[in-house]
Amino acid sequence: MRNLRLDMCYDGTRYKGWQRLAGVENTIQGKLEQTLSRILGEAIEVSGSGRTDAGAHAKHQVASFHTESDMPCGEILSQLRTYLPEDIGIYSCEEAAPRFHARLNAKDKTYCYRIWNSESPCVFDRRYVYRLTDKLDVSKMEQAAEAFLGEHDFSAFCANKKMKKSTLRRIDALTVRRHGEEITVTVTGNGFLYNMVRILVGTLIEVGRGERTPESIPQLFGEKREKAGYLVPAQGLCLMEVNY
Amino acid sequence: MRNLRLDMCYDGTRYKGWQRLAGVENTIQGKLEQTLSRILGEAIEVSGSGRTDAGAHAKHQVASFHTESDMPCGEILSQLRTYLPEDIGIYSCEEAAPRFHARLNAKDKTYCYRIWNSESPCVFDRRYVYRLTDKLDVSKMEQAAEAFLGEHDFSAFCANKKMKKSTLRRIDALTVRRHGEEITVTVTGNGFLYNMVRILVGTLIEVGRGERTPESIPQLFGEKREKAGYLVPAQGLCLMEVNY
Repeated sequence: MRNLRLDMCYDGTRYKGWQRLAGVENTIQGKLEQTLSRILGEAIEVSGSGRTDAGAHAKHQVASFHTESDMPCGEILSQLRTYLPEDIGIYSCEEAAPRFHARLNAKDKTYCYRIWNSESPCVFDRRYVYRLTDKLDVSKMEQAAEAFLGEHDFSAFCANKKMKKSTLRRIDALTVRRHGEEITVTVTGNGFLYNMVRILVGTLIEVGRGERTPESIPQLFGEKREKAGYLVPAQGLCLMEVNY
Repeated sequence: MRNLRLDMCYDGTRYKGWQRLAGVENTIQGKLEQTLSRILGEAIEVSGSGRTDAGAHAKHQVASFHTESDMPCGEILSQLRTYLPEDIGIYSCEEAAPRFHARLNAKDKTYCYRIWNSESPCVFDRRYVYRLTDKLDVSKMEQAAEAFLGEHDFSAFCANKKMKKSTLRRIDALTVRRHGEEITVTVTGNGFLYNMVRILVGTLIEVGRGERTPESIPQLFGEKREKAGYLVPAQGLCLMEVNY
């Protein structure tokens, strides 16, 4: 049984997220499995490094799957590129170590959230940014970002109210940068709870607006969902990198 | 009578080009005139710096129009941003000199044509590039580009067979650059004939493929349409700048 690794990207605009769901047509995982199954002539199940939300994007996602087929990787790559829709792209298809698993072996992941903080037009990237014209104090947001570094209980940053597993996660890097009219929040961590990045960004925005102070951030750890900030829209979110 | 200048951009994907045409619904000029007429309460006719083809884009287009209205420019700008669709963006709306005319006063224009020259995915910019996996010799294309500089009879680069006016045009700059998997052709000139940039790029591609030599370019000036290269798709084309 071969174990293969796919490195890929997608524009999530028209999808209901990564995860295949019973009765839900348009998911990235579903589309990928359907296409691989047709190419390889057997039922394929893929594991992604993590689920991305409905409407969120990935510049670099990693998936792995097992197959009995002896089709060369180059041929699988070429057929995937032929049959997948143009909003899903495959960088590479390679043999992986027998025990490689895209989710279980991921050491950390990096997400980027793009805020278009201007009245000016953002026509060409309009599907990949969150437009927000509020005046934001980026230096305060940077200060608040530092408080997230390290391991904390992110219960307040988890949209799944029935979460029974640990809500401890470690954030290794979190930066807020303004480049002209755009503000970019980039976060690297060992794992992310359901909607965690989007709630974290919403909390940083509330700091930027002056509705919270950077000093108040540590009080959120271990708290209930309602103590943290609002959930920003998925379309500004993009999975950038997975490290193994 | 006030004379106003609009600086704008658009994603031309779903439009039938700049120019309003009788019976054609979706044109940029038509959409802009319809919206301005509603905002200002009078019939508005706009002049663009030039027509862009169906499916071509503009990162910077300039238009001018006359109005009897005394609505402040800031208010017109704000209402245009509210009522125009999200694939048309307005940078600014300003009072112009009484005799300013977006087309007649344009000194030169710069277009950029993007070729995605790779099998690799180009998911996020897929609507703004022409995918072409042929092996292209960029240094030969650069050499051919030099032959276009200066004033020439571009009859072979005009798709309008009934063109009765002069087909003399001056090209001030023409560069071909590879950045990773993308090849960009950038051209500045005092005016462009119908489909001229797209035929010019098609001709450069034929040089890049080895089907023509850089030395053969000067023989095309003053010739018939069929002597020049093929017409590349509009979606890779973008108007970048207009100089007055």
